[in-house]
Amino acid sequence: MSDRIANPALRAKVMSPDEAAALIQPGDNVGMSGFTGAGYPKAVPLALADRIHAFRTHGHDFRIGVWTGASTAPELDGALAEADGIELRLPYQSDPVSRSKINSGLMEYIDVHLSHVAQMAWEGFLGKLDVALVEVAGITAEGHLIPSSSIGNNKTWIDLADKVILEVNSWQPEQLQGMHDVYYGTALPPNRKPVMILEAGDRIGVPHFICPPEKIVGIVETHAPDRNTAFKAIDEDSRAIAEHFIDFLDHEVRAGRMPAGLLPLQSGVGNIANAVLAGLGESGRTGLTAYTEVLQDGMLDLLESGTIRLASATAFSLSPAGVERFLAGIEFFRERIILRPQEISNHPEVIRRLGVVASNGMIEADIYGNVNSTHIMGSRIQNGIGGSGDFARNAFISTFVTPSTAKDGALSCIVPMVSHVDHTEHDVDVIITEQGLADLRGLAPRRRAERVIANCAHPDYRPMLEDYTERAGKGAWGLQTPHLLGEALSWHRRFMDTGSMRAH
Amino acid sequence: MSDRIANPALRAKVMSPDEAAALIQPGDNVGMSGFTGAGYPKAVPLALADRIHAFRTHGHDFRIGVWTGASTAPELDGALAEADGIELRLPYQSDPVSRSKINSGLMEYIDVHLSHVAQMAWEGFLGKLDVALVEVAGITAEGHLIPSSSIGNNKTWIDLADKVILEVNSWQPEQLQGMHDVYYGTALPPNRKPVMILEAGDRIGVPHFICPPEKIVGIVETHAPDRNTAFKAIDEDSRAIAEHFIDFLDHEVRAGRMPAGLLPLQSGVGNIANAVLAGLGESGRTGLTAYTEVLQDGMLDLLESGTIRLASATAFSLSPAGVERFLAGIEFFRERIILRPQEISNHPEVIRRLGVVASNGMIEADIYGNVNSTHIMGSRIQNGIGGSGDFARNAFISTFVTPSTAKDGALSCIVPMVSHVDHTEHDVDVIITEQGLADLRGLAPRRRAERVIANCAHPDYRPMLEDYTERAGKGAWGLQTPHLLGEALSWHRRFMDTGSMRAH
Repeated sequence: MSDRIANPALRAKVMSPDEAAALIQPGDNVGMSGFTGAGYPKAVPLALADRIHAFRTHGHDFRIGVWTGASTAPELDGALAEADGIELRLPYQSDPVSRSKINSGLMEYIDVHLSHVAQMAWEGFLGKLDVALVEVAGITAEGHLIPSSSIGNNKTWIDLADKVILEVNSWQPEQLQGMHDVYYGTALPPNRKPVMILEAGDRIGVPHFICPPEKIVGIVETHAPDRNTAFKAIDEDSRAIAEHFIDFLDHEVRAGRMPAGLLPLQSGVGNIANAVLAGLGESGRTGLTAYTEVLQDGMLDLLESGTIRLASATAFSLSPAGVERFLAGIEFFRERIILRPQEISNHPEVIRRLGVVASNGMIEADIYGNVNSTHIMGSRIQNGIGGSGDFARNAFISTFVTPSTAKDGALSCIVPMVSHVDHTEHDVDVIITEQGLADLRGLAPRRRAERVIANCAHPDYRPMLEDYTERAGKGAWGLQTPHLLGEALSWHRRFMDTGSMRAH
Repeated sequence: MSDRIANPALRAKVMSPDEAAALIQPGDNVGMSGFTGAGYPKAVPLALADRIHAFRTHGHDFRIGVWTGASTAPELDGALAEADGIELRLPYQSDPVSRSKINSGLMEYIDVHLSHVAQMAWEGFLGKLDVALVEVAGITAEGHLIPSSSIGNNKTWIDLADKVILEVNSWQPEQLQGMHDVYYGTALPPNRKPVMILEAGDRIGVPHFICPPEKIVGIVETHAPDRNTAFKAIDEDSRAIAEHFIDFLDHEVRAGRMPAGLLPLQSGVGNIANAVLAGLGESGRTGLTAYTEVLQDGMLDLLESGTIRLASATAFSLSPAGVERFLAGIEFFRERIILRPQEISNHPEVIRRLGVVASNGMIEADIYGNVNSTHIMGSRIQNGIGGSGDFARNAFISTFVTPSTAKDGALSCIVPMVSHVDHTEHDVDVIITEQGLADLRGLAPRRRAERVIANCAHPDYRPMLEDYTERAGKGAWGLQTPHLLGEALSWHRRFMDTGSMRAH
C-alpha cells in the first residue's frame, strides 16, 4: 500500500478494482473524472468492462450512463464502449471506439457546453448520479482529497453521488497538492453569487475536494500514467496559422484595442494550439496570462521563458516528455499554474469579465462565418463542442482556426454553408487558415463572404466559392445572406458521392 | 419653449430640427436612441431625410451609419431607409422599408447580440461614432439628462460621440425621472469588474445620463408620442402556447427544479408574450420578478395585480391604451419598474446569475432543436437576433415559441433542418407550439427529434417529418444527428417553388 492515503479510516477502504467495479450496478449513472486524457480513473473502468462482459455472457444486459469532465482514454471510454456498456455518454468524447458506436446508433451521446454540465447535473433532469468514480493524487490525514492532473466536474460528482469510489494514483506527483483551486461557492439560482475572479490568477476556493467519509465506499490504488499522447512536430500549416494569429494580436495592440500585455489567452488542444504557443514564445512578449481549459506542452515553455506568467486551466494535457519536464520543474510551475473546476475555467461570467482571447479549432466554416465544430457531413459526430462555445460567445475576440483543406485537398474547410452549426455568425469574430486571416468584426454578411473567400479559402476552391457567391447574389430569396438552398449543401453531397468536394 | 430644460446654458442650445439635422454630415456614424419603438428621436431623423433628399437632388450622395438600441419607428428607420440614407444599420431593425432595402442589397445590416453592441462600439472596430442623437424626457438644472421611455445604448452613444444632439420630448412623462438605473461601471478588459446585480431589482447606477455640456451641439424640443402599436387581441394559438408554457413552469416547481416564486422571467415581444403574461396573471402566483428587455401592456396588469412585484427592462413597448394606464398609475409603477442600459438588461453575467427563464419567438425550429430567429428561406432577413441569444445561452431555461405553421399552413415552423441557425442545439432547452411542448433537456439528438415531431409539429406535417426521420436513420452518413443532405432543405425549396411546404 502506498503512503498516499494518510487518513487511517480511509486506508481501511482500499480494495481491488474488481471489488470496486462490483459496487456499480446496471443502470447506474456514474460521474467519472477525466479531462483531455488527464486524471481519469485507470483501473476500475477496465474491471467494470470485464464485469459487463461477464453479465453479457450470462445473458444479462449491463449499461451505465457515463458523465465525465471531457475526453478520457482507451482504458475508460474505449473499454466501456467496446463492451457496449454505455447507454448514454456526456458531455464530450474523442475516443474512436466510442465515436463509432455513437455514429452507428448504438450509444446515445449528449454534446454539451462544458460549463453547463455541473448546472445540468445539479438541476436533476439528467437523472440521479449514483456513483462518483474519481482519480485523486492522494488523501490527507484530515480526509481531504488531493485532486489529480485534471479537475473537470469532480467536485460536482463527489457532491452529488450517493457513493464515491476513489482511485489513488501514486504516478501523479504528490506536489500537485496546492495547485488546485476548488470553488465551493456555486449554487443554483436564486442563490447564485458573483464569481469573484478579477484576474486569471485569483484564487477563490480551497486546494482539495471535501467528501463526507461515509460516502466513500471504496478506494483503489493505482500507479499508472495519464494518456499523455505525444505531440507531432509542428507542421507547416499550423505554423502559418499561428503566424497569422500572432500578427493579428500585434495588429490589435497597435490599433489600441488590446493592451501590450494582451488579454488572457484561451487556446484549444492540438497541433495548431501548440504552434500558436511556440509562436508566442518567439514573439518577445512577456508577462502574459492564460485563462483556458487545458495546459499543453507549449505552455510549459512559455511559463519557463516568462512569456506567460500565469496559466489557469482545468486540466493538463502533456506528452510523456512534457510530463518529465513538468516533474523536473514542479516547484517552479506550482507558483504559476492553477487548476479549477471546469464550471469555473469555462464560466461565461469570468470569460467575459477577463476579456479572454479565444482560439478554437473547427471542422469547417462557411462564407458567412458560421462554424461547424462537431459533425462530419452534418450527421456524424467527431468529438463534441467542448468548451468552444463557452469561450466563443463570451470572449473579447473569438477566433476559429483550421487548415483550409482536409483529406489531401478533397475537403474544403471553407464551404458555402456548413452542414451543422455550433457557432453562429453572431459569435465568430475571426477565421484563420494557413492561407490567411479574415477579421469579420463589424462586417455585414456579404462583406464577410468576400473576406473569408479571399483570405481563408484554398486557391483550388476559391473560384468555386466566388461562383456560388455571385450566383447567390442574383438568385437568392433575399440579399442579406444570399444562399441557393438547392446548392448550399451540394459540396458535402458531392464529397459523399465522389470522395471529393471538387467540381471536376 | 417647454419647461423640460431646467439648465439655462443648455436652453440656449435649442434649435429647429432642420438646424440640428444640418449638424450631421455625409459619412457620419450616428448613435440614435430607440428600442422597440420607444424613446427614439422623432423630429431630427425626418429633417435629416429631407436634407438627404435635397443633397440627392443636387447630385450628391448622403449616407450615414445608423446605430440604435434596437427597432425604432417609421419616422426614423422608415424615413431614412426610404431616402436611401443608411449605408450601414445595426444592431436590430423591424421596419418594412428598411427590411426591403436590406434584402434588395441596397443597405448593409449587421445583426448583433444586443448585449454586445456597446462593447463593440467601445472597441472601435465599427469606426468612429460622430454624433449621438438621443431623445430624453428632460434636462435637470445641473445638466443631467433624464432618460426617456427606453435606454438602449444611449449611455454609450453619449459617452462615445464627438457631438451630442438631444431631442427633449415633453410628451414623455416627467415622472419617468428616477425610474432608470444607468450603470457607469462598465469598461473594456482588463478593467472590467463584476456587475453586482444579485436580484432583479438591485440598483447599481444613477438615474440619469451624464454628458459634458460642451459636447451638446443642439437641442430640439418635441411633443410626440412613441410608436405605441396597438396589440391584437390574444389569438387561440398564442393562448395555447401560453398554457403549455405555464404548465411547464408549474411542472418544474413540482419537480423541485424551480422555487414557487419562480425565477426572473424574460419574455420576448408580441402576441405570444402578452398571452403568457395574461396566463401568469390567471395562475394565482404572486411576488414574481421579470428581468427582461421590454415591458409590454401585459406587464402592467401583472404589476397591478401583484403577480409580478418587480420588472427590470431597457424599454417600454406599450399600446396607446397601455400608455394611458401607465400614466394614470405612474407613482405605483415607479416603485416597481427599473429601466437599464441594454448592456445590463441583457448582460450574460447577470442573466446567468439570476437564473432567468427565457422565452423568445422564432421563425422555425428543426427536429434536432436548432432555431432560426432571423432569416426567411435562409437568405432574407426578417428583423434580427435581438436579445434572444443573450438570454438563450445564459438562461436557466431557454424556451422558444412559435405557432406550428405560418402562411395559413403553407409553412411548417418545424422543419427537417433550419435554413439559418441563430440558436444551436446546445442552447435550446424547450420548444413550444400550440400543439404542445417539447422539453429537450438531457436528450440526445434522435430523442429530441421524436419529441419535437410528436409534441410540436402540426399534424399535417407530422407524417412527413416522421418519414424524413425514418429514412435519415437509415441513409445518413452518421447516426448522431441523421440528415439526408440532399433533402434537408427541400421543404424550403418546395415553398419557394410552389408556395407551400406540403408534399402536394
